[in-house]
Amino acid sequence: MNFSSSLLESAVLELSKLPGIGKKTALRLALHLVKQPETEVVRFSDTIARMRQHIQYCKSCYNISDTETCQICSNTMRQAETVCVVENIRDVMAIESTQQFNGRYHVLGGLISPLDGIGPDQLQIDTLIHRVQQEGIKEIIFALNPNIQGDTTIYYIGKKLQDKSVRITTIARGISFGGELEYADEMTLAKSIQNRIPAEQYVRSSNT
Amino acid sequence: MNFSSSLLESAVLELSKLPGIGKKTALRLALHLVKQPETEVVRFSDTIARMRQHIQYCKSCYNISDTETCQICSNTMRQAETVCVVENIRDVMAIESTQQFNGRYHVLGGLISPLDGIGPDQLQIDTLIHRVQQEGIKEIIFALNPNIQGDTTIYYIGKKLQDKSVRITTIARGISFGGELEYADEMTLAKSIQNRIPAEQYVRSSNT
Repeated sequence: MNFSSSLLESAVLELSKLPGIGKKTALRLALHLVKQPETEVVRFSDTIARMRQHIQYCKSCYNISDTETCQICSNTMRQAETVCVVENIRDVMAIESTQQFNGRYHVLGGLISPLDGIGPDQLQIDTLIHRVQQEGIKEIIFALNPNIQGDTTIYYIGKKLQDKSVRITTIARGISFGGELEYADEMTLAKSIQNRIPAEQYVRSSNT
Repeated sequence: MNFSSSLLESAVLELSKLPGIGKKTALRLALHLVKQPETEVVRFSDTIARMRQHIQYCKSCYNISDTETCQICSNTMRQAETVCVVENIRDVMAIESTQQFNGRYHVLGGLISPLDGIGPDQLQIDTLIHRVQQEGIKEIIFALNPNIQGDTTIYYIGKKLQDKSVRITTIARGISFGGELEYADEMTLAKSIQNRIPAEQYVRSSNT
């Protein structure tokens, strides 16, 4: 690209470093920003810099937080003995949106994946084991994506916790609401038959 | 979305104001920025703020510029008597990339479009007429998109310039290189027959 302004060129270069943003999109975004009022663009850039400078990871659950301990961990109304283990912050947000979980979280920061060079040491697994020992946790709920990495991670952590008196569960796999049996994959359908639930429990949970 | 951090929430809000960036993409971008080194994110935000604060429009051609007069207008090696009229800055960049034009530009900042409420007064048309009178311009080349707005704009400016001794041309429309006749639209094909060029000229221009 042939820029007539080095200011524009540097802004396009910076924007194109963002994931999924190519040079052409970056140029479109930069030209959009040029057209906005100066105060708005300064607020835009300040907000982003401030986020990076002041955001923290909760020292207990490793969720993203404005404070040393996140809102969820410091909320005394939430059950401390149930911990939902998730891969990343987006999963916390997804589960919080359901308003169905009243325990705490533990964010692993990824899944065990030898092919990608991610071993247990790079994840918040030791801190989870430590929490189980220290905080009197009674149940660990794994809410990980159903793939090899997720299953490996559950297996690894399960092994580490096998001599602790903690109940280990995973979220249910099955046919999603609105999904049709005909189009479900065999694995999901098979699991949903194996892990069938009493009909009265189904009716009760559908009504909440 | 259920944010556990107001810093993150404000950053997502700002990012989602960008064109074509929804809430989910904004969240992905924000979480990407959180993971980058602080110096990189500060440079990112500084670059964008600095661009908006210091960028100017060239006082002669209205191209984007770091200085009062842009690099192209202040380049004495370029012909001052030929001016290429374009809709926006991206078109300047596209034509500059071809390295085939050695004149100057005039950026209209849009096209006349009554349906969108854009009249001649909102565009840099008066300044173009003024330049023709002042700068001894001999040829105006319209390089506008071939649609109703582009044609209306050419017609309007042409009328305004009809009593001036300036040659008015438009870039050629025709079958693009690599395009197949069979799939060309009738209008383009018809125009390319009407505006046919001597074969020796074609061979010459293909070799440069």
